[in-house]
Amino acid sequence: MAWDGDAVRYLDQRFLPHEVRYVRAQSTDDIVAAIESLAVRGAPCIGVFGAYGVALLRQNISGDAEFLAAAQRVREARPTAVNLAWAVDRVLRADDALREARAIHDEQIAVDAAIARNGLALIPKGARILTHCNTGPLATAGGGTALGVVIAAQRGAKHPRVFVDETRPLLQGARLNVLELREAGVDAVLIVDAAAAVTMKEQRIDLVIVGADRIARNGDVANKIGTYSLAIAAAHHGIPFYVAAPRSTFDLNIGRGSEIPIEERASREVTSFGATSVAPDGAAVYNPAFDVTPAHLVTAFVTEYGILHPPYAESIPALEFAPSLLV
Amino acid sequence: MAWDGDAVRYLDQRFLPHEVRYVRAQSTDDIVAAIESLAVRGAPCIGVFGAYGVALLRQNISGDAEFLAAAQRVREARPTAVNLAWAVDRVLRADDALREARAIHDEQIAVDAAIARNGLALIPKGARILTHCNTGPLATAGGGTALGVVIAAQRGAKHPRVFVDETRPLLQGARLNVLELREAGVDAVLIVDAAAAVTMKEQRIDLVIVGADRIARNGDVANKIGTYSLAIAAAHHGIPFYVAAPRSTFDLNIGRGSEIPIEERASREVTSFGATSVAPDGAAVYNPAFDVTPAHLVTAFVTEYGILHPPYAESIPALEFAPSLLV
Repeated sequence: MAWDGDAVRYLDQRFLPHEVRYVRAQSTDDIVAAIESLAVRGAPCIGVFGAYGVALLRQNISGDAEFLAAAQRVREARPTAVNLAWAVDRVLRADDALREARAIHDEQIAVDAAIARNGLALIPKGARILTHCNTGPLATAGGGTALGVVIAAQRGAKHPRVFVDETRPLLQGARLNVLELREAGVDAVLIVDAAAAVTMKEQRIDLVIVGADRIARNGDVANKIGTYSLAIAAAHHGIPFYVAAPRSTFDLNIGRGSEIPIEERASREVTSFGATSVAPDGAAVYNPAFDVTPAHLVTAFVTEYGILHPPYAESIPALEFAPSLLV
Repeated sequence: MAWDGDAVRYLDQRFLPHEVRYVRAQSTDDIVAAIESLAVRGAPCIGVFGAYGVALLRQNISGDAEFLAAAQRVREARPTAVNLAWAVDRVLRADDALREARAIHDEQIAVDAAIARNGLALIPKGARILTHCNTGPLATAGGGTALGVVIAAQRGAKHPRVFVDETRPLLQGARLNVLELREAGVDAVLIVDAAAAVTMKEQRIDLVIVGADRIARNGDVANKIGTYSLAIAAAHHGIPFYVAAPRSTFDLNIGRGSEIPIEERASREVTSFGATSVAPDGAAVYNPAFDVTPAHLVTAFVTEYGILHPPYAESIPALEFAPSLLV
């Protein structure tokens, strides 16, 4: 992800792992389409992308009303991850839009590094880890959240073994995590999502770590569909369940998970894969892109400010007064 | 599935839902390949197919040693479902192989009808049901087990709504259940496997019902990968979890689930989707085709002899003395 003078340059993640295709977003439509189509995805990453996008719009659109309407379209391109709205709002409040977008990007890199550092203490040597969806560099435009912790553990010679849920319907785990973990030299094993529970038991998983799209004030977590199922299975097996996320993913204005808007996506994500239809034509589909894991199933949160333990009603609201990491 | 004089005629399920392709198995290799490739699948169905297959081999192979070796290859084509070995052994013990194979097929039809009848009592009017993998007519060569119960509920004007796990990696739920439920006029909604837990909660599921590949004497159940995860989630939500299976799926020679051999299948089932590769080349994969659900997570078993309740250490061994349904 990079500012390109008259465009935002990004990697179209839909073509990974088999093709590395960079694209230049030059208009409101380009920016909104990149977010909606998941060409750019991952809560922190769409925050950074949205920030650059709004800086680009500020540069291109002279009329304030028109600019604000365009920024609003970007802000609402996806509803669940709060980072997008948070980043757009920051850019809108700033005097220098581009400077603020760059600051958001720089901060994300520093924040991810702090999350990785803080999470390291939770990873035993030789840990067997299970994760879901992609939370590495591709998901944040920095070093990653949950996968950033795993990669830091590898760099710290802890040699984790990571079981990666493929993460249907869009297979971010299969397509992106395996690639990122291989590049970092991490021992990665791919499984179907439905194999997670038996993997916890038969492969003696030590911990589960995932990212988040929005975390309510009470600690309820909206994250990729399947996270709730994992958290239940982890609790059943007595396995710690960690959520790694930056301050910007915590929505302190929302009291509980039931208030988080959950995006439902097109049925074709489930009924077909690529060009291949896998279900009878016209099959009815329920395709929520996210689910909400209740706070009581979360062992701890890994943030740039350290590990947040229960009771979350105390540890999470305290984030309101946390200083920026970049001063 | 039908005896065809010099072949066993079967529907190649790999091409469903988009193509109905019938094939004639004429040799040991044909029969073994059909089972290994999952062209024929479903525990009771591969039992019936294996029985016809061995009857065909008895007709084609004059030497006893050669015939027994060929029958053994069929018996071992897949290790987890006990119905295959059970059916092959029955045909081997019989004086008239073809007559015994036909009896096994006829019995399966009668047994499925009894399972459907017995299971009906467990389905409330307007029930919201969740199921996994395919357990309808395609899976049994009869009327189906778990899906047979659901279809009977529809015929009994109970108008169930069924949420169908797509069932990765081979998508039997998406490809086969949606087809069978549509044909039976049942309201079916397709979900990814990872959405099962949130569906239980948000769509207020009343019960889960699945089939089985092998059930140990203590009630532990080997079934399609993902069943264990579902059972844990059902228990977490206080939702009844039922297993519908014929007597022939109970292996009274095995004390507990840990003794059931679990087939691990090729990694390409996970790394590709039809012709499309979805993971980096050479990705390591853990692909158990089945998992074991411990007996304590099973609310009840639906069999042709009625509902088996806990304690299973009493109700299951009693099956040993159950008479054949066809006398």
